[in-house]
Amino acid sequence: MIYLDGNSLGPLPKSVDSALSSMVTDQWGAHLIKGWNVDDWMGQPMRVGNMIGKLVGAPEGSITMGDTLSVKVYQALSAGVQMRPDRKVILSDSGNFPSDLYMAQGLIAQLDQGHELRVVEPDDVMDAITDEVAVVMITQVDYRSGAVHDMAAMTAKAQAAGAVMIWDLAHSAGAVPVDLAGCGCEFAVGCTYKYLNGGPGAPAFIYVRPYVIEDIKPALSGWLGHDAPFAFDLDYRPAMGIERMRVGTPPVLQLTALESALAVWDGVEMADVRAASVRLTELFISEVEARCPELTLFSPRDPAHRGSQVSFAHAEGYAVMQALIARDVIGDFRAPNLIRFGFTPLYIDDADVTGAVDVLADILDNRVWDDPKYMAKSRVT
Amino acid sequence: MIYLDGNSLGPLPKSVDSALSSMVTDQWGAHLIKGWNVDDWMGQPMRVGNMIGKLVGAPEGSITMGDTLSVKVYQALSAGVQMRPDRKVILSDSGNFPSDLYMAQGLIAQLDQGHELRVVEPDDVMDAITDEVAVVMITQVDYRSGAVHDMAAMTAKAQAAGAVMIWDLAHSAGAVPVDLAGCGCEFAVGCTYKYLNGGPGAPAFIYVRPYVIEDIKPALSGWLGHDAPFAFDLDYRPAMGIERMRVGTPPVLQLTALESALAVWDGVEMADVRAASVRLTELFISEVEARCPELTLFSPRDPAHRGSQVSFAHAEGYAVMQALIARDVIGDFRAPNLIRFGFTPLYIDDADVTGAVDVLADILDNRVWDDPKYMAKSRVT
Repeated sequence: MIYLDGNSLGPLPKSVDSALSSMVTDQWGAHLIKGWNVDDWMGQPMRVGNMIGKLVGAPEGSITMGDTLSVKVYQALSAGVQMRPDRKVILSDSGNFPSDLYMAQGLIAQLDQGHELRVVEPDDVMDAITDEVAVVMITQVDYRSGAVHDMAAMTAKAQAAGAVMIWDLAHSAGAVPVDLAGCGCEFAVGCTYKYLNGGPGAPAFIYVRPYVIEDIKPALSGWLGHDAPFAFDLDYRPAMGIERMRVGTPPVLQLTALESALAVWDGVEMADVRAASVRLTELFISEVEARCPELTLFSPRDPAHRGSQVSFAHAEGYAVMQALIARDVIGDFRAPNLIRFGFTPLYIDDADVTGAVDVLADILDNRVWDDPKYMAKSRVT
Repeated sequence: MIYLDGNSLGPLPKSVDSALSSMVTDQWGAHLIKGWNVDDWMGQPMRVGNMIGKLVGAPEGSITMGDTLSVKVYQALSAGVQMRPDRKVILSDSGNFPSDLYMAQGLIAQLDQGHELRVVEPDDVMDAITDEVAVVMITQVDYRSGAVHDMAAMTAKAQAAGAVMIWDLAHSAGAVPVDLAGCGCEFAVGCTYKYLNGGPGAPAFIYVRPYVIEDIKPALSGWLGHDAPFAFDLDYRPAMGIERMRVGTPPVLQLTALESALAVWDGVEMADVRAASVRLTELFISEVEARCPELTLFSPRDPAHRGSQVSFAHAEGYAVMQALIARDVIGDFRAPNLIRFGFTPLYIDDADVTGAVDVLADILDNRVWDDPKYMAKSRVT
């Protein structure tokens, strides 16, 4: 198998099975309820958050873990809107992952306070940042094209216009260098099952700039975000710092898999990962363009504007991807016509790239995709 | 060890370690992204929901899994409030688990539409159900005392008053017979790491009465609650049925542990579990009252009004529980002065009960608890 879908679900790190088995047997099985203390399950969301912080330029104690990315988007959006009560526009772009837009729509309908979700084309976001905008919510790396927004420039523009900046780092964390502290954004969120290899359903992360956290009244005011969860007060009082963004009981099994998966990043420099990623994507594009003339590059050609994935358009992209998968070259399809390939230098090398293009060229040259068994659509691709 | 804390965290079922290892290695490791289809990870929240449905009297397709109980409370509350736009009172009781109250407080502050959380004493709930009340939100079994509310009677009274009924089944599912369809409530939520033994951080469940689901506009409108998640439309359109209460990517590892844990309920009748539970709690109360005169029963004396746990009050309850734990009799402490014991007939028998009372009586008779090492407070107990 040549796995070019680590941008959708990272593979199983070697350490995870035994780490999980040990947690299940030696912690849950042996310590039962005492695991919350003796195995520090309660501290795991902060401990794992700090591991991710090192990969995205966040200071210690500014990231916590839990829930799903959609829920973390909701927390950030709700807080952002609350920070700008006189403004009614949430600005995003059509390249944002749909769930982020859906969560905004749900929040707006629920608040019923006249907010508007304004969705512009990715290239038009900068110009659309006006003094009407309460919150700018953007996914740094476009899930379809891999196009990268300039975090520093956009954050500066948003803040100059008086808006709050939320970055979704789903396709950034572990893929491109990110400097959260340096860019000065108020919020960032991300998932951990892509480039961070935390496994299906791995918990999300949320970063809040330390400067603003104490002013946030969490919409999802769960007990583990309480200042004293085990006092069982009847009234909510937010915890100091990022812990107030915790909600319910942390998913210890998923966090254990993730914590084990993150250990592979010890001693890895994101600059080195990025350099290798650029080399791989450049090689892939040049090979595909030389050998697959039916495909049209959909990703930015300039690697400085591209994340760690490459998409090509093909009218029968779905069938082409199914034919690739049948030959054990795994990428994915994104509607309406994109075949998408992720390049993850921790386990993909030049030989994988050229090997994948060999198969792709053969599928296109011989119209292998033009077969009913590849044309049929299934729900998950 | 005598484990009387299965009402806080259930023990590790024998099947879970290998089920999880198999999922990790043979599904995630071998199938990678294809696991969503070939291993039906995408269908797991509904499949597991149906297993729980059998234990709580819910029809097929009326329960889905995910997130934490606090998040599911929020979804139900938000929907309930929305169903009664002309009413402003959320009614609950002081025996509700604090996180449920906190989530209501967060929702009310966020909505800023003049809602009020009205918290009355448990015995006063029925009388407090008036035509001002939009939503009645009650945990069926009080987490401190084990006192049980009458679901059928309270739901009938709420609905006669025009209110929406939400039941939290955290201390009910797997502990007492529940008839969700029969009682006619609109919503129920619960966790799965207590009597259902799903492990620390196991996902929550939410039930919505089929009759009302199609009218609900989810506040947490995530992509996996969308009618066509993989169409990547820019606009949210809720899925048919209970699937609209899904939010983000399901926690496959946690769900796999839970699914394996739930298999032990095959062929188990809740009526038999309940009969055994009553026998165990009756035995425990009679033994403690005969041998530990310093303790005051805090739970209802009538087993018909008591769930599957028993609490006693003691001025130095914290230290007493620490001394018990040091002797491997595990219960837990709940502020301000309760020692709490859960009775779980799947793995606790009469000998455990009398064995626990032997240790408890010795600790009290000899003031073993009166030791600095037991008096110091730690965060999680």
